[in-house]
Amino acid sequence: MNTGIQLLGILVVFCPVLISCWNLPRNDNYTYPELHLFEQKLDHFNPTVDTTFMQRYFVSNQYWKKGKGPIFFYTGNEGDITAFINNTGFIWDIAPVFQAMVVFAEHRYYGESKPYGDIQPSVNTTAQYGKLTAEQALADYAEIITELKEHLGYNSIPVVAFGGSYGGMLSAWMRIKYGHIVNGAIASSAPVKYFPGLTNCEKYNQVVTSDFASTAHGPQCVKNIKMAWSVINETVAQAGGLRKLSEIFHTCHQLKSAEELTDWIKDCWSNMAMVDYPYPANFLNPLPGWPVNVTCSYLSVPFEGSDLLKAMYEAVSVYNNYTGKTPCFDTTSAISSSISNSLWDYQWCTEMTMPFCADGVRDMFLPQKWSYENYVKNCKAKYGVIPRPHWAIVNFGAGNLKSASNIIFLNGDLDPWHVGGILEDVSQTVISIKMWGAAHHLDLRHGNKHDPISVIEARHTEMMHIKKWIAEASNIIA
Amino acid sequence: MNTGIQLLGILVVFCPVLISCWNLPRNDNYTYPELHLFEQKLDHFNPTVDTTFMQRYFVSNQYWKKGKGPIFFYTGNEGDITAFINNTGFIWDIAPVFQAMVVFAEHRYYGESKPYGDIQPSVNTTAQYGKLTAEQALADYAEIITELKEHLGYNSIPVVAFGGSYGGMLSAWMRIKYGHIVNGAIASSAPVKYFPGLTNCEKYNQVVTSDFASTAHGPQCVKNIKMAWSVINETVAQAGGLRKLSEIFHTCHQLKSAEELTDWIKDCWSNMAMVDYPYPANFLNPLPGWPVNVTCSYLSVPFEGSDLLKAMYEAVSVYNNYTGKTPCFDTTSAISSSISNSLWDYQWCTEMTMPFCADGVRDMFLPQKWSYENYVKNCKAKYGVIPRPHWAIVNFGAGNLKSASNIIFLNGDLDPWHVGGILEDVSQTVISIKMWGAAHHLDLRHGNKHDPISVIEARHTEMMHIKKWIAEASNIIA
Repeated sequence: MNTGIQLLGILVVFCPVLISCWNLPRNDNYTYPELHLFEQKLDHFNPTVDTTFMQRYFVSNQYWKKGKGPIFFYTGNEGDITAFINNTGFIWDIAPVFQAMVVFAEHRYYGESKPYGDIQPSVNTTAQYGKLTAEQALADYAEIITELKEHLGYNSIPVVAFGGSYGGMLSAWMRIKYGHIVNGAIASSAPVKYFPGLTNCEKYNQVVTSDFASTAHGPQCVKNIKMAWSVINETVAQAGGLRKLSEIFHTCHQLKSAEELTDWIKDCWSNMAMVDYPYPANFLNPLPGWPVNVTCSYLSVPFEGSDLLKAMYEAVSVYNNYTGKTPCFDTTSAISSSISNSLWDYQWCTEMTMPFCADGVRDMFLPQKWSYENYVKNCKAKYGVIPRPHWAIVNFGAGNLKSASNIIFLNGDLDPWHVGGILEDVSQTVISIKMWGAAHHLDLRHGNKHDPISVIEARHTEMMHIKKWIAEASNIIA
Repeated sequence: MNTGIQLLGILVVFCPVLISCWNLPRNDNYTYPELHLFEQKLDHFNPTVDTTFMQRYFVSNQYWKKGKGPIFFYTGNEGDITAFINNTGFIWDIAPVFQAMVVFAEHRYYGESKPYGDIQPSVNTTAQYGKLTAEQALADYAEIITELKEHLGYNSIPVVAFGGSYGGMLSAWMRIKYGHIVNGAIASSAPVKYFPGLTNCEKYNQVVTSDFASTAHGPQCVKNIKMAWSVINETVAQAGGLRKLSEIFHTCHQLKSAEELTDWIKDCWSNMAMVDYPYPANFLNPLPGWPVNVTCSYLSVPFEGSDLLKAMYEAVSVYNNYTGKTPCFDTTSAISSSISNSLWDYQWCTEMTMPFCADGVRDMFLPQKWSYENYVKNCKAKYGVIPRPHWAIVNFGAGNLKSASNIIFLNGDLDPWHVGGILEDVSQTVISIKMWGAAHHLDLRHGNKHDPISVIEARHTEMMHIKKWIAEASNIIA
């Protein structure tokens, strides 16, 4: 395509030999992509419904070689798309190399692409939320890409889908379901097999635990975290216990139960394991480099009673107040505002049934069984819906991907989601890359001098395949 | 698989050389498959809707080698599924060879699989018909196959989808959209490219005309058919003209306009071209062998005025009264009851936009332009819907099938639908077979001594690929 790419090819070949690979230069010079609005059909699967809504997507032509360069299309996931624009530096780093147009599309119902505005999913709004599904989101993206190509007058432009986490599932599914529209997919940390019967519900928390255990002070850290659950429960059993805990943990409102605090802390650990990046980053929350390590540094010696609780407060502050600007902790939500909790919870309650559990032995959490009955009961109570746990498997095939092509599944061993990912090559064109020392879709971030070698290599492999997909697509076109 | 298959392989190799190929023995000994009912979700794409309906499917285990043989799954199209059970003899002929289970599933809203009973699509029932789409039908089949495999306890059974016409589109789309569920597809006479902008609207009628023109008395036959339109119009212009025409054509009710008669006759010619089989058959209507030829035998000499009209009556009687038992002609419907007119018309008005037109020069019909505006206007008036002509292309990719695999598209040159079919190989596994001398999905019928050599060969190629798909699937499983 150009000498940059040829050079890249040479580097990719020598990369595993040279060990100290050429790291991609970080591109900070990109101009922010331009906002566009797409009038999208609310229900792609019912021709009698004409309702539409306005969907956001952002386009950058800065590096695009008109009529020649591909489209790099980020399949937005469960959050405001601007969070992904800012946290998917890999696309910006490689866009100049491939002379690509860059598009970030927002997932329906999230961010500013809300068909019904700000109303939240509940038993009273069930009817308005029936069109919040992965299938509808994929159809949205198919429509946007088709319109883009037609508008540009280049129907034959190769398209590569990118996505991380649920967005990675969507990018893989775009290639699987709309292979005529998308020529290949980068599916990073995409737990496409994280469905009932396919992934053991204990595994996620075992990885979280192993992440904490493998830090410098890991064994003592895990011991303290495990012990804290009973100390919290014992404190609550005492007179004024909840008040005391509220004070120690600087909660914004007085705690109503021990579970409120233990659930919130559990979510902190889970989320931190996901974003355990080797350098300071701001994805879910602003965090230092290797935040799990920093957290464990506060739990590196044996503590007891109130001392343990105070140490725990310091430890959770790493995830919740790294900036030092958070006056108090809102224990009703562990995840930052860039990812919408209740909307994803609604999706989890309908089609994205992903079971979690803990035994407190092979993991550091309070034992919690996965009860399908409770799950159904809670989802019905919260949203008036009955989950369809088998549908995602029937519709998307989970790990049964022999008929698919041109997908790279990337997974990091530090990322607890990898347990539901594709961890072995399916074929020559549906491949699995394991990134040692990497958390949740680290490869999709800007190149960084602290990146583990596995991620540097992974990005080169991604680029090699992208190059191949573009060449294939151009042959098809020619 | 067994010596029968090995023998088959040898025959396929020598078939083109030997010319006089081994024709498949017709299997009339199959027992009628057993009726099953499946409680199907009415809307697969809206998790908040729990409504279900009962869908019919028929299963035969007669030839199935338990746990070893594949499933042959007919993806039912726009009609009562029993019509397809009786007109898809190829499946019955080869089921014993492959020791296959045979399943025929009925398309939702057709036959006895009606979510809302017998109410017809209209402006008043638009809401009830929103779930009559190809996507919902495919999801139905995905659910039935998944449930069948689970029920049988053999999740790994290879599945081959079969279908003709719209059913062939569905079988191809099953493989494209649910490649993890269906290992390969036989898509016979499937006009997957018959959508606006992809297929010239004149072509269909040009093939119909060419079918008539290429019979023994073709040129005179076409001349008479062409002339008849003006004779009909002239007759209507005379006093008592409609009454006279009603008498000559033995219509059940007095004709209301010239168009009523000309539209009805036009549909007769169109449909007859589709089912111009070399031997007597009963698919749309009971018909003699080579019915177009028989029809043209009544129009083999020059006629004028009333004589031409009387000859035309004899000619249309071939299609409408071959049994001699039809007391009068219902000119409000040209197609027999096995194919539901208004339901397909509704689908044509929503997502299956297939444009037809005629110029009266390169075809034998009254000139009729394709007006998108009128199409939309009429669909809105009839069903309260606005067509989505681009959606089928966006959703299914039409002829853009490079990412697909394991599909055979078969088309007959006599079949006017072939103009919207895949007429060239897409890849080594998505192939096109052209059947010279064959009408609409002739290959799917029982073997017959009158079959053209192209159809005999086509069936061998189909079997060779089916064998390969099963072997591949078994490797995947192993």
